[in-house]
Amino acid sequence: MADTARFSGVLCPALTPFRDDLEPDERRFIEHCRRLRDQGLNLAVFGTTGEGNSLSVAEKQALLQSLVDADVDAASLLPGTGSASLADAVSMTRHAVTLGCRGVLLLPPFYYKDVDDDGLFRYVAETIERTGDRRLRVYLYHIPPVARIGYSLPLIERLLRAYPETVAGIKDSSGDWSNTAAMHERQWDDFRIFAGSETFLLANVRAGGAGCISATANVNAAAIRDLYDDWQADDAAARQQALTDLRGIIQAMPMIPALKAITAHRERDPTWLNVRPPLTPLDPGRREALLASVTDSRVPRTPGGGNSR
Amino acid sequence: MADTARFSGVLCPALTPFRDDLEPDERRFIEHCRRLRDQGLNLAVFGTTGEGNSLSVAEKQALLQSLVDADVDAASLLPGTGSASLADAVSMTRHAVTLGCRGVLLLPPFYYKDVDDDGLFRYVAETIERTGDRRLRVYLYHIPPVARIGYSLPLIERLLRAYPETVAGIKDSSGDWSNTAAMHERQWDDFRIFAGSETFLLANVRAGGAGCISATANVNAAAIRDLYDDWQADDAAARQQALTDLRGIIQAMPMIPALKAITAHRERDPTWLNVRPPLTPLDPGRREALLASVTDSRVPRTPGGGNSR
Repeated sequence: MADTARFSGVLCPALTPFRDDLEPDERRFIEHCRRLRDQGLNLAVFGTTGEGNSLSVAEKQALLQSLVDADVDAASLLPGTGSASLADAVSMTRHAVTLGCRGVLLLPPFYYKDVDDDGLFRYVAETIERTGDRRLRVYLYHIPPVARIGYSLPLIERLLRAYPETVAGIKDSSGDWSNTAAMHERQWDDFRIFAGSETFLLANVRAGGAGCISATANVNAAAIRDLYDDWQADDAAARQQALTDLRGIIQAMPMIPALKAITAHRERDPTWLNVRPPLTPLDPGRREALLASVTDSRVPRTPGGGNSR
Repeated sequence: MADTARFSGVLCPALTPFRDDLEPDERRFIEHCRRLRDQGLNLAVFGTTGEGNSLSVAEKQALLQSLVDADVDAASLLPGTGSASLADAVSMTRHAVTLGCRGVLLLPPFYYKDVDDDGLFRYVAETIERTGDRRLRVYLYHIPPVARIGYSLPLIERLLRAYPETVAGIKDSSGDWSNTAAMHERQWDDFRIFAGSETFLLANVRAGGAGCISATANVNAAAIRDLYDDWQADDAAARQQALTDLRGIIQAMPMIPALKAITAHRERDPTWLNVRPPLTPLDPGRREALLASVTDSRVPRTPGGGNSR
């Protein structure tokens, strides 16, 4: 039976490692997820950062199964299950619930761009109905800069009216704080609002939000978590600024290859540099520049290491 | 052994019918494809119009197999095989070649938007190398209004240098004639340039292009094909105008539901109205308005019926 208590805190959209032949690397994936769990994070696997849409359904289901088999607690898992294809969204969602995952992060169907709220409502509703499991908890994945379509406020309200038990929260990766703020103003009952990056972590928690789901948690887990835990501390604003500064350094590069470059460096394991097309690894020059900047910054150099706090 | 002669003429991006439970409707799909074949068209199944990205890989493979089993000539088939996921693109492409399809129409990986030509080259190259079959012929599917990324001219040249036998042509659905014209100017050896709509059919054929692959061929096959066959006739410009006018009527509505509404009307079969989310059927009012406009226009009312020629 799944633990259906709603998520809060810091979730990491875990990177997906690939072997040199570009097949998913199960061993390194489990190791990475365990490191993140050891730092107290829950895991939003197969998001944008996890190259989820560069994987087949079968590949994602095998990786998810491997985590559960390796005793990574299913109650810590929020896999991405949305897809351009309703059929794939249902397969992924059903599999995740069956494994006991505490929720799923649902991208809208991102191929067609000229779609309306009726069509998006129908996609979410069909995913919920066809999954047909009361344990299902859906977190909406709102990321218009990439998906180019998203969940409007009226659409969220309509979904909450239809599925108040099931629709449990949102990851707002719009990059637009006014959208997050507008959701807070609605005061939807127990709806978990996650900032899509730690840049808005403090603002979001102060507004009553649930935390953040941020790519950089792959390399800066402890510091992000510390701010979440101690958001009322006197130095919270300074700590937020430190997080924002570090994100700025990483964000100046293509994010996913940059996060993999940092991980490869820390693990002394160049296999971590691999990305699936259409992404490309950082060239050696940019990699060196990135690692130099990050080493100079406050990012902890070993997993679990503290920040300057 | 696949017939690897390159395509020319008019291809139809065939609609995919769904049953009331939204499962693919194999019987109606075969019937529709046969009607289009009877009108002399080749078939670009699982494109944007065919809701290809709303289907799972398994659903598409089953439908493709059903066409071949129903004796639809594999040499007439150009299935869409591109995907956000390299793994899915390879599965689909390999399956299509194994069935003897004369080519595949390859979308770029459309989830990430901030990608460069190196990453897109690598996606096409990996798809070709992993398919590993000399019979493979790739037609690039350039549709930036929907995919939001596409195949630049330098990228096409790089692909042609690397895979001159395999990269056989393009469907240009940019809606931008200057892009099509720029490709013609390059005079790539035997590279088949298809207009993505019949609006540019005459211009494209006059410039030496291969024909068109157009959504409206689902409902206006004979007239489009007639213009292709007789493009040097005196009344070619007038016939082009008639095609363009009819397309304008259909394009004023959401295209795919509109094409399905016309098909449902002709076949007296409301099952044809079904679309998968995120698309929605036309409401009855718009459907009626559409059917009235189309009936008044030159569109033949029965498949195979002539136009005003």
